[in-house]
Amino acid sequence: MHFPNFMQILDGIALSKTIKEEVKQVVATYTDKGKRPPHLAAILVGDNGASKTYINSKIKSCGECGFESSLFTFDASIGEAELLQKIDELNKDPKLDGFIVQLPLPKHINENNIIQAISPEKDVDGFTPINFGRMALGLPCYIPATPFGILQILERYKISTSGKHAVVIGRSNIVGKPISILLGLNQPSGNCTVTLVHSKTIHIEHYIQQADIIICALGIPHFLKSEMVKEGAVVIDVGITRVDDATLPKGYRIAGDADFENIKNKCSAITPVPGGVGPMTVAMLIKNTLLAYQRNYGDH
Amino acid sequence: MHFPNFMQILDGIALSKTIKEEVKQVVATYTDKGKRPPHLAAILVGDNGASKTYINSKIKSCGECGFESSLFTFDASIGEAELLQKIDELNKDPKLDGFIVQLPLPKHINENNIIQAISPEKDVDGFTPINFGRMALGLPCYIPATPFGILQILERYKISTSGKHAVVIGRSNIVGKPISILLGLNQPSGNCTVTLVHSKTIHIEHYIQQADIIICALGIPHFLKSEMVKEGAVVIDVGITRVDDATLPKGYRIAGDADFENIKNKCSAITPVPGGVGPMTVAMLIKNTLLAYQRNYGDH
Repeated sequence: MHFPNFMQILDGIALSKTIKEEVKQVVATYTDKGKRPPHLAAILVGDNGASKTYINSKIKSCGECGFESSLFTFDASIGEAELLQKIDELNKDPKLDGFIVQLPLPKHINENNIIQAISPEKDVDGFTPINFGRMALGLPCYIPATPFGILQILERYKISTSGKHAVVIGRSNIVGKPISILLGLNQPSGNCTVTLVHSKTIHIEHYIQQADIIICALGIPHFLKSEMVKEGAVVIDVGITRVDDATLPKGYRIAGDADFENIKNKCSAITPVPGGVGPMTVAMLIKNTLLAYQRNYGDH
Repeated sequence: MHFPNFMQILDGIALSKTIKEEVKQVVATYTDKGKRPPHLAAILVGDNGASKTYINSKIKSCGECGFESSLFTFDASIGEAELLQKIDELNKDPKLDGFIVQLPLPKHINENNIIQAISPEKDVDGFTPINFGRMALGLPCYIPATPFGILQILERYKISTSGKHAVVIGRSNIVGKPISILLGLNQPSGNCTVTLVHSKTIHIEHYIQQADIIICALGIPHFLKSEMVKEGAVVIDVGITRVDDATLPKGYRIAGDADFENIKNKCSAITPVPGGVGPMTVAMLIKNTLLAYQRNYGDH
């Protein structure tokens, strides 16, 4: 594959490895002193294939970083009350630094009720309202893993953001909305002029064409076309959609939101899919768990 | 004064009176049944002239709506611990529905510590992180009074927002940031494409000129010039700065962020200063207190 010299692939696999290696070294400084390692738990309900893949990747990363991990799996038929009881138990467990509830949940369970039951101190996904509010107000918090991963990509690849025009496509609570807020904050990897576009935006390409930094988070494969991208823009592709592909043994491939092949010669940098934001999300969950450990247990 | 036919003054005084009258009638339905009226308390520290004016206006509005009100004033020398103790007392008072701490506070007091001590149930200013997070996530909350007032102006004047490009100037935690989030939510008076511009934005006029709706919240008198405003745009001026004026008995006048005289013939609607967003802010604090009363005490 040929790329022009100026174009940079933002390698989320390599970067996530670096970050996990850093975390592992920090953990060793604690365990060398006889402290227990950080401990992350995950709750998985039902048998969604993508959810299982994500969870396995998170558990594997825990092992790589010297973390303890616990996985609690429940049948899709579990009731909301029973799930809330499990969350209460994990909230109270002093040997657990953080935990996540893998989304989506079965339709009979109210996701908001579940998320709001998680103790903010252990909310390493950063999904609780208080965490979200603290993030928006620039207070110490757990930044949701995917936006946190995007910020790390920008920071570690030394992509300056101050005064740049960032256009965020998609307003989900876990990606588009938080990253649109974070990029506008007066802090490192912030200070962007931010435009948030979404399903109700008219002439969406008009805004995207003005962007220095494009964050594409709709979940529509190849939505972002070359003609929407300004020459030299930075493209962060958060899309990770399973598309049927009978030519592959597993029967599907992972598609991003950007038409990578046609954009790669126009932008200055781009995250591939797979291998961009995805692995960073896992690494930042690990990083948040280390933070939780340091705040609640280890760093004193 | 002559305005072209199509231009509309968004009269915050008249609208705030309407809203307070509505609140008063709702309160009467409760007190007629023998219930106590809603009760708002305010904490005022020091003797900032503008703060005193705001507080007086809030207390007066309580009376107009049939609310009980309490004002607690403290010398600027009060310690943080003593102030926190007062907040704890108000949090626990079952006869109090909501309370506010008038900002700014003296420099020796950490505003974040004070705000975070307010019980979310009584946080009718909507400044606590959990309230802010709930707002951003589209959950039931207390919308901060000034953004709430802006939404009400748009809604009651039937200014459609869906698909419109809103440019918010200024990213303060109490106006710019929350209104930029609210206008982008998938709800009534939302669904705007939103651009947030601020002190680090380069070519700020480039963005403002594209706006269908301009929310000007910097606190720089007459920052917004006619040439920055697209023909037919809606201008919401949140500025409320005291400017020295020796020709007036009180020695100052209130100036907005918009150069009203030169913009009024170009925009389709504009809030005057004074008499626009300011009185709406007070009305929405009253409305939030009624909501707190209904949620915590009265509506059952």
